[in-house]
Amino acid sequence: MSRFWSAVTHKLTPYVPGEQPRHKRLIKLNTNESPVEPSPRVLEAIAATSGDMLRRYPDPESVALRESLARRFGLAPSQVFVGNGSDEVLAHAFLGLLQHPKPILFPDITYSFYPVWAGLYGIEFERVPLDEDFRVDVADYQRPNGGIILPNPNAPTGVLLSLAEIRQLLEANRDSVVVVDEAYIDFGGESAAALIPEFDNLLVVHTLSKSRALAGLRVGYALGQDELIEGLSRVKNCFNSYPLDVVAQRAAVASIEDEAWFQAGCQAVVDNREWLQQALAGLGFRCLPSAANFVFASHPERNAADLFQALREQGIVVRYFDKPRINQYLRISIGSREDCEALIEALQALLA
Amino acid sequence: MSRFWSAVTHKLTPYVPGEQPRHKRLIKLNTNESPVEPSPRVLEAIAATSGDMLRRYPDPESVALRESLARRFGLAPSQVFVGNGSDEVLAHAFLGLLQHPKPILFPDITYSFYPVWAGLYGIEFERVPLDEDFRVDVADYQRPNGGIILPNPNAPTGVLLSLAEIRQLLEANRDSVVVVDEAYIDFGGESAAALIPEFDNLLVVHTLSKSRALAGLRVGYALGQDELIEGLSRVKNCFNSYPLDVVAQRAAVASIEDEAWFQAGCQAVVDNREWLQQALAGLGFRCLPSAANFVFASHPERNAADLFQALREQGIVVRYFDKPRINQYLRISIGSREDCEALIEALQALLA
Repeated sequence: MSRFWSAVTHKLTPYVPGEQPRHKRLIKLNTNESPVEPSPRVLEAIAATSGDMLRRYPDPESVALRESLARRFGLAPSQVFVGNGSDEVLAHAFLGLLQHPKPILFPDITYSFYPVWAGLYGIEFERVPLDEDFRVDVADYQRPNGGIILPNPNAPTGVLLSLAEIRQLLEANRDSVVVVDEAYIDFGGESAAALIPEFDNLLVVHTLSKSRALAGLRVGYALGQDELIEGLSRVKNCFNSYPLDVVAQRAAVASIEDEAWFQAGCQAVVDNREWLQQALAGLGFRCLPSAANFVFASHPERNAADLFQALREQGIVVRYFDKPRINQYLRISIGSREDCEALIEALQALLA
Repeated sequence: MSRFWSAVTHKLTPYVPGEQPRHKRLIKLNTNESPVEPSPRVLEAIAATSGDMLRRYPDPESVALRESLARRFGLAPSQVFVGNGSDEVLAHAFLGLLQHPKPILFPDITYSFYPVWAGLYGIEFERVPLDEDFRVDVADYQRPNGGIILPNPNAPTGVLLSLAEIRQLLEANRDSVVVVDEAYIDFGGESAAALIPEFDNLLVVHTLSKSRALAGLRVGYALGQDELIEGLSRVKNCFNSYPLDVVAQRAAVASIEDEAWFQAGCQAVVDNREWLQQALAGLGFRCLPSAANFVFASHPERNAADLFQALREQGIVVRYFDKPRINQYLRISIGSREDCEALIEALQALLA
């Protein structure tokens, strides 16, 4: 604490991301990184960086990237906003579109950064409980609110809402912005981006970190009708004119343009997920139905915290949340087949 | 305007950066970019990027970069904060260290992003007039305030405060954070970083965009005692855990470690500045004494807006601010010798 900090800084409780070990060789199944490498075109774009590109400011509006994304989703570039990872995009959405007199709504079990952004910008919120199967019931979101945000599939559960349910949510909340955080949508869901022409209250947020294997690059984006995108742009242009460096802009375009690589990578993760779910079931684990690049698994006879710790000691890192309702679950990122096999072997030994 | 925007979003007036032409071939002397290329080591570091680096999250704390900067300035890594360009660092400083009940102070003529950040975070401010020679008089900053921010050298004037004057400012404001924004310090000033061990109220902010020729990379940093850096980290970790991508972190380290290239680049800019100032004087311009990589020049017989427009028509872009006190000045970035010569030739013809 310091007398120099502003009042809000004293009250902040920072988000804690999954561990990024700097030295040790670990099997890392804790931050939902892709086991597949990014498109070779991305590496080519990066290697083509010149000194002349670097000494100039990048395009502050990332026009080429927004055009590429607009083409992919059948939208106009004015309906695409890009940022320094989807976390930055979401932060701007909290300040620009979710800061209203009424409290915002999100699930009780969800991405743990949401209450942190709410705290940063003084936004009140209500946590809406998931049902006993860890499902969002969209009927629970029919009450006065200043906005709604939820991941689909949800994190850390992996449970998916259908497009019909998202539509119901949008129809019941015509006066609020509904942010659908689709970080994991490419592993089994249908994107709500298709509903944008119909709903002026819909903002869809994506990241290149998961399904495009570019967590290291920090690129995310939002899709929505012009007014919502303009609101985000206003905030961005009052915060940082140049959020994406020239290398990231060019590399992101290369990734978006390589659809075949993208599809193959998603399929590889889905295949590994099916394999891992079956193997975990064979060991007695219960997995929630996952549409994401991770599974959320619980063992009826073993304490999750103990399993987490025992795996950690063997150099296998998964994610454990010591929180109500989910403290008997492990969130396991879908790694390479080799890493998944190593995990299953280690669990086999621990459960024997 | 939109009913979905938050109240603050309705009121925002975004910062407008200098034009970044996307297609036309222009002589670009409008955004203080470096005419020198960045260190070849930076390009090597970028070309060495692998798919495995990209699919992983980057180090959220940028430890290697902070260690490199700490070594250079004789500080501890806990006294170094890094961000996605110095604009992001400054934005976090406004929210984390300058948002207090009393208004903050900055010069009437200064970096025009300051009032924008103040607006974003609801911070009241008072503009303190520069004297008739466009100098900051530090005695004017001895009044109750919630913080002080000023560039040194100042922008867009280029006028420098001595280290003794900065010390005086710090001594007179022991209870306020004083942010010294040293974007241009390497072109002729003495950094206040040397005063950090003495003053717990000092935050020094630097960028790699100007003197390290890396505007395209978006890396900036702040130096200060632990408490101030921790305040910035709290804000950062409530906004975006991973502000610097893996490519930018590695490239920035490569730049910081190449001191010889850095010194030679700064000297080349200083040499060109001396040449340009003499040539402008020869055409009858008055230049303020510049310690930056730009000059602020006025012609006693020619309207600055007309000159700006006439140069623009010839494909030479400089910066013109239609603001009180400075609307008869052009801010001209120090380009390559070739670009400086082209500017002088064009002005010669215009003034003939």
